[in-house]
Amino acid sequence: MGSALANAMARADWTVNLWGTWLDDHLIDAIEAGTPHPRINVVISEKVNAFRCAELEEALDGVDVVVIAVASVGVPKITEMALDGITKAKALWLTSKGFMPRDGKIMLLPDGIRSIAAAAGRELPPIVAIAGPVKANECAAAEPTATIFGSRDLGIATEYARLARSDRYRIEPSGDEVGVEVCAPMKNVYAIMLGIADGLEEKTGHPHHNLKAATFTQAVREMSLLAGALGADPATPYGLPGVGDLEVTGLSGRNKVYGMRIGRGEGAKAALRTMEELEQTVEGVPALPLAVSLVEQSAPQIREQMPLLYAAQKIVHEEVPDYLDLLIEAVLPTQP
Amino acid sequence: MGSALANAMARADWTVNLWGTWLDDHLIDAIEAGTPHPRINVVISEKVNAFRCAELEEALDGVDVVVIAVASVGVPKITEMALDGITKAKALWLTSKGFMPRDGKIMLLPDGIRSIAAAAGRELPPIVAIAGPVKANECAAAEPTATIFGSRDLGIATEYARLARSDRYRIEPSGDEVGVEVCAPMKNVYAIMLGIADGLEEKTGHPHHNLKAATFTQAVREMSLLAGALGADPATPYGLPGVGDLEVTGLSGRNKVYGMRIGRGEGAKAALRTMEELEQTVEGVPALPLAVSLVEQSAPQIREQMPLLYAAQKIVHEEVPDYLDLLIEAVLPTQP
Repeated sequence: MGSALANAMARADWTVNLWGTWLDDHLIDAIEAGTPHPRINVVISEKVNAFRCAELEEALDGVDVVVIAVASVGVPKITEMALDGITKAKALWLTSKGFMPRDGKIMLLPDGIRSIAAAAGRELPPIVAIAGPVKANECAAAEPTATIFGSRDLGIATEYARLARSDRYRIEPSGDEVGVEVCAPMKNVYAIMLGIADGLEEKTGHPHHNLKAATFTQAVREMSLLAGALGADPATPYGLPGVGDLEVTGLSGRNKVYGMRIGRGEGAKAALRTMEELEQTVEGVPALPLAVSLVEQSAPQIREQMPLLYAAQKIVHEEVPDYLDLLIEAVLPTQP
Repeated sequence: MGSALANAMARADWTVNLWGTWLDDHLIDAIEAGTPHPRINVVISEKVNAFRCAELEEALDGVDVVVIAVASVGVPKITEMALDGITKAKALWLTSKGFMPRDGKIMLLPDGIRSIAAAAGRELPPIVAIAGPVKANECAAAEPTATIFGSRDLGIATEYARLARSDRYRIEPSGDEVGVEVCAPMKNVYAIMLGIADGLEEKTGHPHHNLKAATFTQAVREMSLLAGALGADPATPYGLPGVGDLEVTGLSGRNKVYGMRIGRGEGAKAALRTMEELEQTVEGVPALPLAVSLVEQSAPQIREQMPLLYAAQKIVHEEVPDYLDLLIEAVLPTQP
């Protein structure tokens, strides 16, 4: 996603320094050679300056904005490594999505980053959470893309939405950082459940469209409830970061493919091993218990209204065999 | 949908009289022979009593509930034919979905039916609008299905939701008749636009997932705005009748297939002729100008906030050639 955003920003006439971690040398090789990016199969703009792992200081030198775009598990380490550059910038943007466990507490990433900075006695610039239905390959290739920039300060979000906009990369600003941020890891969890409905079609030979649509609706309802319980606007998940991102993630992507395998009857653990053998990370799997802990810690009052989240936990991590019944009970209306 | 609901009601231990119009003799033949229903490929329960066109009076004799389940264009005529039986029943249920032009005014079907009854000097029982993500074949086959019963009186909706419920047919009651009712014809219109994104993938060889998700989000936003402008709860479309039904309709169904043809570049009028030759009715096409008129007549204040509806009208009925640009301008965020 970092490389995709680099292309979008280059189209908006920004100068972009793209730094790769110790895992990314092969990506930087491709960018420097002008060949397609191995992950998204799109050539990265010549206007993007590539930097290797050892060149972090140079990459951060004098920049206006730092963007963190690594897998969520890497965010604490990268934050610490880049903290000096971040504190000198005017803003920190974040496309990484997930939860950050810190001292036993489950945090959304912006709060986790703030906590890391506070522990180091450093002050952060404003954070902009970037979310919405954005497949990286399409964004990089300048296919039409809608995204949302969420910041505590709507003015900051609006300013950067204006500056980063191009014809094919359009940005809605939002003052609801938490609402924007909470949807992304939750939608990965729910996309697994959407995949189960698709897998049931393969298993039974009968489509389960009605069940999938009920699952989609319940997922949106739970994202809205969770946002509201965390002090965000319950309407934020009805827009691009919730409904929109769930739509794209539930149609394609690894979480959905993993869910399909469960729906086909492969067994949650066996299916995960298969995904791992194919080097397909399923982000929703580690996010799931963290999401449950977040609810228990910060929103216990909505516990009973999150049946799909708890069903997902049972199906994925406890490998309960009657996953169809669990899903039905979680998403079809209860007796009125 | 009438036959599918008959099966669901038989499972809830109701006695069902299923009446077929003058177009439905072949369906009644199949039901009486115990062979699969030709439209949905499911056998209709033996507990369902089939009646032919000439037997309307017998079919309506002594019933508690009358259900109208014909295509929306047939609702006025069927209402008039069945009015005597309807007025004697305790409730009128409605799975038909669409708009009813009456004396130049675009009405939702329940209001249209009330207007027909009022013109005849007759009093109607309470109306229950039935909507949500329900593919008829899955409902008939007892695949898991979630639906919503909307009535002006939540108590009435709740009573029938209890009485019609079975294990695989679960009903959410709602007191928002208008909110439930307005989503169904609108989602047919918007499903055409979702299909365009799929067709663009075929045309260009590149997926347009981001565009499709932005289209989905804008469609939900417009359904909510329209519901609110018509005095309904703007949150109703965020549930089963809006988000849920759009999900299932946008994944499959004739409106989406028609949109795919437009997206592939077949031309809106040529694509419609092809659909007609295949005897595939595209409900969203006649609904579109009625939806536009509804907005102009009853919600002109939200006109500017409905760009996707107006883009659909231009693409489908004016055959504007640059449909990709129109769609992009309608669904990607505007300059903040």
